[in-house]
Amino acid sequence: MAHHCYFNGTILPADETRIHITDLGLLRGYGLFDYFRTYNGKPFQWDWYWERYTTSAALLGIPNPIAKETAQRIVHELIERSGLSDCAIRFVLTGGYAADSISMTQPNLLIISEDIHPVAEPEYLTGIKVMTYDFVRDIPTIKSIDYKHLMILQPQLKSIGAADVLFHHEGRISELSRSNVFIVQNGKLITPHRDILFGITRKTVLALADGVIPVEERDISLVECCTADEVFTTSTTKKVLPITQIDDHVIGTGKIGPVTQTLLEKINLMVDKW
Amino acid sequence: MAHHCYFNGTILPADETRIHITDLGLLRGYGLFDYFRTYNGKPFQWDWYWERYTTSAALLGIPNPIAKETAQRIVHELIERSGLSDCAIRFVLTGGYAADSISMTQPNLLIISEDIHPVAEPEYLTGIKVMTYDFVRDIPTIKSIDYKHLMILQPQLKSIGAADVLFHHEGRISELSRSNVFIVQNGKLITPHRDILFGITRKTVLALADGVIPVEERDISLVECCTADEVFTTSTTKKVLPITQIDDHVIGTGKIGPVTQTLLEKINLMVDKW
Repeated sequence: MAHHCYFNGTILPADETRIHITDLGLLRGYGLFDYFRTYNGKPFQWDWYWERYTTSAALLGIPNPIAKETAQRIVHELIERSGLSDCAIRFVLTGGYAADSISMTQPNLLIISEDIHPVAEPEYLTGIKVMTYDFVRDIPTIKSIDYKHLMILQPQLKSIGAADVLFHHEGRISELSRSNVFIVQNGKLITPHRDILFGITRKTVLALADGVIPVEERDISLVECCTADEVFTTSTTKKVLPITQIDDHVIGTGKIGPVTQTLLEKINLMVDKW
Repeated sequence: MAHHCYFNGTILPADETRIHITDLGLLRGYGLFDYFRTYNGKPFQWDWYWERYTTSAALLGIPNPIAKETAQRIVHELIERSGLSDCAIRFVLTGGYAADSISMTQPNLLIISEDIHPVAEPEYLTGIKVMTYDFVRDIPTIKSIDYKHLMILQPQLKSIGAADVLFHHEGRISELSRSNVFIVQNGKLITPHRDILFGITRKTVLALADGVIPVEERDISLVECCTADEVFTTSTTKKVLPITQIDDHVIGTGKIGPVTQTLLEKINLMVDKW
């Protein structure tokens, strides 16, 4: 649930925040977002998320209308108003209103405080099932609002009991719909390095793996992924979550593996002390 | 400019119509639209547009919430309220509101009356310039709201004086950002048959060409297009509009060609009597 929303200068209850129908996000899919959460009331990896938000905006050609310090002040006010010990924050930046339905004049920026939807604890032990899907996200380095493929696939995911899709194309895997993917094979931690959104939790995990296990950022074939010792996914809400089934292939023991376990403990320790 | 807007059961001035920020069109790019205009106050090719709208909805997995007869009644009321002799009508259908920002419950349907933005008459003689761009629209048979590539390219188009992009991929052309493409070569009218949105004006022109010139629907290479005798584009607002320059290549005489002229006259005659 959304709590409060900053919209072009004003903070209102999210329930009361509405956007005019000529918004280019709505009419032309011309928008991006970013999403982070707090731990102990403090935004996690704020500098990195801010950097990614401004990079997305630059790549999409939407001028970012707000200074970092102002954004930070708004985020803190939203956290305070939420009344929660921890909450999630969503930035949504669109091309703004267009009377002719196509020409950008001034962007619209929304900053929304929301409930966190954490992964249920047992899922960290059992892991999740994913469904393979031949696709590369359109301009994957941008955190655009374009999730039409995932939305179309939702009934199918539900029917087979899969939690998400694993995108692959021309034999290579890239990412899940909203998270990155890692494999553990022959004592190495490996993650794709292209055709992906560069996740902040991905970056955090790569840093946490330093000194624990050798790391490679490179292409991973779908076959290599399906036959890996361990597979896991990383995201803001999922942290380090095992993937224990890909279509009909069970990964490893079908439970969380030792490297995944170690990295999950490390990130849990990190966020506890954030 | 938008005039009035039907939104889930109510017609209001478009100025006053706002959508809540949890709409999946806005948050997840999960939406489609359709767009048609009236001639002599009557919706042009209404049956065909309705069919395409419902097809898009089915392909995108968004349940169409309205019966054809109801939609038709609303469209007529919007036309009447616009007070204009002719207007454009835009349907926008999204995945609706999602408290969790991802799960569809009930779609949102907007039906908006708008000003028509016709092509300036001299452009029918001089034609337009287009810029080639290597791309295939994502799920091209759906009239989704996804126009991010066009939006990103707009400054570049403006700087080189191009009116639109011509999408091509692996040597084949497909369409413009919001319209179809035809070429005339060796006394034949040829238009791509795949990786396109099947335009209603495309369909109308194919019918009008019957008996005038042999027609082929097939792959067209970019080279074939650039060396064609005539090239034109078709859309709801453009009707039959010559393309006289592709990047640096001038097409034919650099003015409207005889087949384009004939088809433009035929569609003008048709809409005059609509």
